[in-house]
Amino acid sequence: MSIRIGILGYGNLGRGVECAVAQNPDMELKAVFTRRKPEDLKIWSKTAEVLNISELQNWKDKLDVLILCGGSATDLPAQTPECAQYFNVVDSFDTHARIPEHFAAVDEAAKKGGKVAVISVGWDPGLFSLNRLYANAILPEGKDYTFWGRGVSQGHSDAVRRVAGVKDARQYTVPVESALEMVRAGKNPELSTREKHTRECYVVLEEGADAARVEEEIKGMPNYFSDYDTTVHFISEEEMKREHSALPHGGFVLRSGVTGKEKENHHLIEYTLKLDSNPEFTSSVLVAYARAAYRMAKEGMAGCKTAFDIAPAYLSAKSGEELRASML
Amino acid sequence: MSIRIGILGYGNLGRGVECAVAQNPDMELKAVFTRRKPEDLKIWSKTAEVLNISELQNWKDKLDVLILCGGSATDLPAQTPECAQYFNVVDSFDTHARIPEHFAAVDEAAKKGGKVAVISVGWDPGLFSLNRLYANAILPEGKDYTFWGRGVSQGHSDAVRRVAGVKDARQYTVPVESALEMVRAGKNPELSTREKHTRECYVVLEEGADAARVEEEIKGMPNYFSDYDTTVHFISEEEMKREHSALPHGGFVLRSGVTGKEKENHHLIEYTLKLDSNPEFTSSVLVAYARAAYRMAKEGMAGCKTAFDIAPAYLSAKSGEELRASML
Repeated sequence: MSIRIGILGYGNLGRGVECAVAQNPDMELKAVFTRRKPEDLKIWSKTAEVLNISELQNWKDKLDVLILCGGSATDLPAQTPECAQYFNVVDSFDTHARIPEHFAAVDEAAKKGGKVAVISVGWDPGLFSLNRLYANAILPEGKDYTFWGRGVSQGHSDAVRRVAGVKDARQYTVPVESALEMVRAGKNPELSTREKHTRECYVVLEEGADAARVEEEIKGMPNYFSDYDTTVHFISEEEMKREHSALPHGGFVLRSGVTGKEKENHHLIEYTLKLDSNPEFTSSVLVAYARAAYRMAKEGMAGCKTAFDIAPAYLSAKSGEELRASML
Repeated sequence: MSIRIGILGYGNLGRGVECAVAQNPDMELKAVFTRRKPEDLKIWSKTAEVLNISELQNWKDKLDVLILCGGSATDLPAQTPECAQYFNVVDSFDTHARIPEHFAAVDEAAKKGGKVAVISVGWDPGLFSLNRLYANAILPEGKDYTFWGRGVSQGHSDAVRRVAGVKDARQYTVPVESALEMVRAGKNPELSTREKHTRECYVVLEEGADAARVEEEIKGMPNYFSDYDTTVHFISEEEMKREHSALPHGGFVLRSGVTGKEKENHHLIEYTLKLDSNPEFTSSVLVAYARAAYRMAKEGMAGCKTAFDIAPAYLSAKSGEELRASML
């Protein structure tokens, strides 16, 4: 019998989950829940029903895992604990600083409901976190580096869009190649924010807007841009649509460490992602962890889990025997 | 209280474990067991006793984990099941094709003894296996590639040393850069053995040996060299000592996959290791999994485990709270 999947929220991430479920023969998408009127939502899958979010509770026994595809700012802090009382859930909560409180709230709800709730699985947090943990456990003496990009940062793009006179904007985070090379060479550099990443903005101006003022305002924006070398390119609406409608991303996690009696031997562990579609890749991670949630729940586990707490084999549709024979 | 570690076998790997334990403040090396006369063995650690292997059973209650540092050909197939009856154990058994039978034998012994036995943890099998599993679970439609090197292959070096007229030899496995670049570019090439790796041999001849005959014999050796482009360099004993006494290694695990309604988005996951000392890095992995074995045994688990069966958090000395706050 297939793993019965539900989706809550049908934005980029929800659509990505829909595609990812279709790539996994042991799963079936059963329902998409939305805050909109269901009749206004066209989905791609033939098998799934579209329902208003108010129907959720009626589906308690009809889904094995509910994948939460809302945002980390306001949706997930409320939705994940709420839903974890009734469903095994998976989310991609990515506000790093607030993960401990999110974990506590979700853990309480999931334990109350006897459900498994997997939080913060995507690529960062998620796969990058896993690589930080493994690399730190193996090389206790060393230094960690994470670089992001080249890729579109939604948060920074939104920040540019809020500048008066900006009609549309896309912001790329770009790792500084020379910094990356220093890390790979084992030089263990101390890198400032500015030395690790640059920021590239592509901006469509509103008619009559003052380009110089807009550029200055972007570059001076605290937190978002003032600590970086930022370039601003003004482009047409057509070019924006043609060249910048995809959402690529990626990055690098490195650990540079030493072993030996005199710490004389150097080792480098590097993990790289190059993603054409950030939301579709994140969705693929969510779906793999949905399988894990389903299997852990079947074994009687309950409570909140992160990628750290989940044995890798739970993510795969293959049995232990198959995995040992084919992938070990 | 520290985790009390024992080492069985004091070759390159055993010495690496000794160094790695010293880098982990929550562990203490208590004993090194050897087939040699204990008085003939000088070890580096001040805290540990050196004992003959015949003493092992007397140490049943004095060690938390015994790390098995023998070879995969003949030592581990006998030692791991034997020792798993009395100790929590960790090994780096790396004969991929024989892992299923090794697992079965070790699992039976460990369950009988109520112990945790972790097998085949190093970097391949081990960290590379983990990356194959995670990447396959996340991108079910795609293609896997593993490249090894540039690094010293002990098995191939030994094979060259067995050729008549060879006094000493070192063999480097070298990934073909252009093949790697094709994979990174998402071209999903079908690569033959010859197209993935080349082999470089450094050979010290015995006096009077016929270089041309030795070179021909190496290059024609089935399994080891005949399917590869192999180069043979004849060098002096001094050069061998000066330039080729280290044991570097490393490699690349890549998965190239697609997502989306039309499979239109491409993603690349790449994991890279660059290691100055293959045995010291493998030892560092063994020691991290020794911590996992200790903690799993404390929770009442028993039986044989591979890296696939072990939640990442068990490898770290940090608590769940610390990990979520610092690494997620």
